[in-house]
Amino acid sequence: MQDFQNNMLPKFEQNTAAFLNNLSAEKTLKDAMAYSVEIGGKRIRPLIIMAICSFYNRPIDNDVLAVAGSLELLHTYSLIHDDLPEMDNDDLRRGKATNHKVFGQAEAVLAGDGLLTLAFDWITRTGLNSKSKIDLIAVLAEAAGPEGMVSGQVADIEGERKTLNLEQLKKVHERKTGALLKYACQAGGILSEAKDNELDLLVNFGASFGLAFQIYDDILDVVSTTKEMGKAVHKDEIENKNTYPGILGLDGAYQSLEQSIEEAHKILVKLNADESILADFLEYFKGKDSK
Amino acid sequence: MQDFQNNMLPKFEQNTAAFLNNLSAEKTLKDAMAYSVEIGGKRIRPLIIMAICSFYNRPIDNDVLAVAGSLELLHTYSLIHDDLPEMDNDDLRRGKATNHKVFGQAEAVLAGDGLLTLAFDWITRTGLNSKSKIDLIAVLAEAAGPEGMVSGQVADIEGERKTLNLEQLKKVHERKTGALLKYACQAGGILSEAKDNELDLLVNFGASFGLAFQIYDDILDVVSTTKEMGKAVHKDEIENKNTYPGILGLDGAYQSLEQSIEEAHKILVKLNADESILADFLEYFKGKDSK
Repeated sequence: MQDFQNNMLPKFEQNTAAFLNNLSAEKTLKDAMAYSVEIGGKRIRPLIIMAICSFYNRPIDNDVLAVAGSLELLHTYSLIHDDLPEMDNDDLRRGKATNHKVFGQAEAVLAGDGLLTLAFDWITRTGLNSKSKIDLIAVLAEAAGPEGMVSGQVADIEGERKTLNLEQLKKVHERKTGALLKYACQAGGILSEAKDNELDLLVNFGASFGLAFQIYDDILDVVSTTKEMGKAVHKDEIENKNTYPGILGLDGAYQSLEQSIEEAHKILVKLNADESILADFLEYFKGKDSK
Repeated sequence: MQDFQNNMLPKFEQNTAAFLNNLSAEKTLKDAMAYSVEIGGKRIRPLIIMAICSFYNRPIDNDVLAVAGSLELLHTYSLIHDDLPEMDNDDLRRGKATNHKVFGQAEAVLAGDGLLTLAFDWITRTGLNSKSKIDLIAVLAEAAGPEGMVSGQVADIEGERKTLNLEQLKKVHERKTGALLKYACQAGGILSEAKDNELDLLVNFGASFGLAFQIYDDILDVVSTTKEMGKAVHKDEIENKNTYPGILGLDGAYQSLEQSIEEAHKILVKLNADESILADFLEYFKGKDSK
């Protein structure tokens, strides 16, 4: 896994930075977009795309890098808008000042708008055939839009004012964070021309991975320090947010995390991918265990 | 023209409302998106698309209505975000309270994000072939994104703090309002399978029309009342905005408007469309003449 990341990420970072830099756009807008993209983060979504292509022996060429970069732009837009004063009002993201703290609130809204639009734009500019481009854009737009992530965000904000049960919480997160992780798996499959039944399995893997991802994120908010996380922690409890540890207790949340990982692993077995780099992604959830 | 509008707009409105209503999304999000879309407006962009299809005898079927609706969703997103407190801070739009005044600032950001994403989503859901879909999405994303409208908006905000000359002002508006009007013309051409040289002429028509549109909008801000416009007027002068009447004087602005209309008309002659419904759009600029 570490080798894979070390091998892939420099190309990915360089390609994404070059795409943004080559745009014919206002300088402050380019600076604001590049700032949040280049703060970094784990790049899990693009890495999933590249890992699936790698599993299918699909070359990681400029088209794959573009589709992976496009997803990271879209993910970054969602973080910039989430951090806005009218939304989560966060000053810190990945250990750095959030976009609106550096560039002002108007520029942050526009940087997010720009990145969201670019995510679709970039796919159209690849050398893929029209059918693959449209498949990718169709799945991405549905995952990111009102039937996916945007509704998840609305439900999350509204959920702060009421207590959710486990099913309701899952439904919020399936859309808020799960949808894009599922798209990452589908995109890898589309780029690799995976068969329909394999695409279905990849989608299911994405769903289980997404659930594990969110439970783990909630657990980290409880057991970590701000220094470790590079963002405010214990915010969930302070803001009375609905979380997996809140509903299930910390032990119960760890159990649910294990179940989701197990579920994801079973799907990889069906795909004959249980020894692949894709399986290593499940190690991500082993980093922080307070038990 | 009036006949064309009376014939087309009810279908357009009904189809757009149905698309939004059928989405599987959070209710408050759907309400917020529908509110701003259904406030109305002149629907000039979708009407241009339909007028071009009509000129080419291309049936106004559900695919045309979808592409026209998609553009109106994207235009509406830009208005919702423009009106936000951190942007133009407008309370009134088309005679009604702006989105954030009704639904709150967080929902308004998300309603805009949702509509922008849906604009691309809707094109993917049409029955058009993959090539046409990708052509439409590619041109729309470029027109709406950091190389188009979003940079225009950034330049507009930054221009408020300095005095622009005529060329600089034109460059702001070519992106801020011109880009989407040009897209409307291109989209009509793509839907009608117009030849390349005709597409070029349509783009040029869109550019001249867009310039006339902005000059006229600036003139209206000077000579109209709030009641007539359904939004605050004389804001440009109060906020020291760069405008055509500000740079050219009111008479000079009227002259520039006439020139742009004449330019647009010449292009229609080349297209043999000078007797078509498309020519009637130039009558739009005859409504308000204070001279």
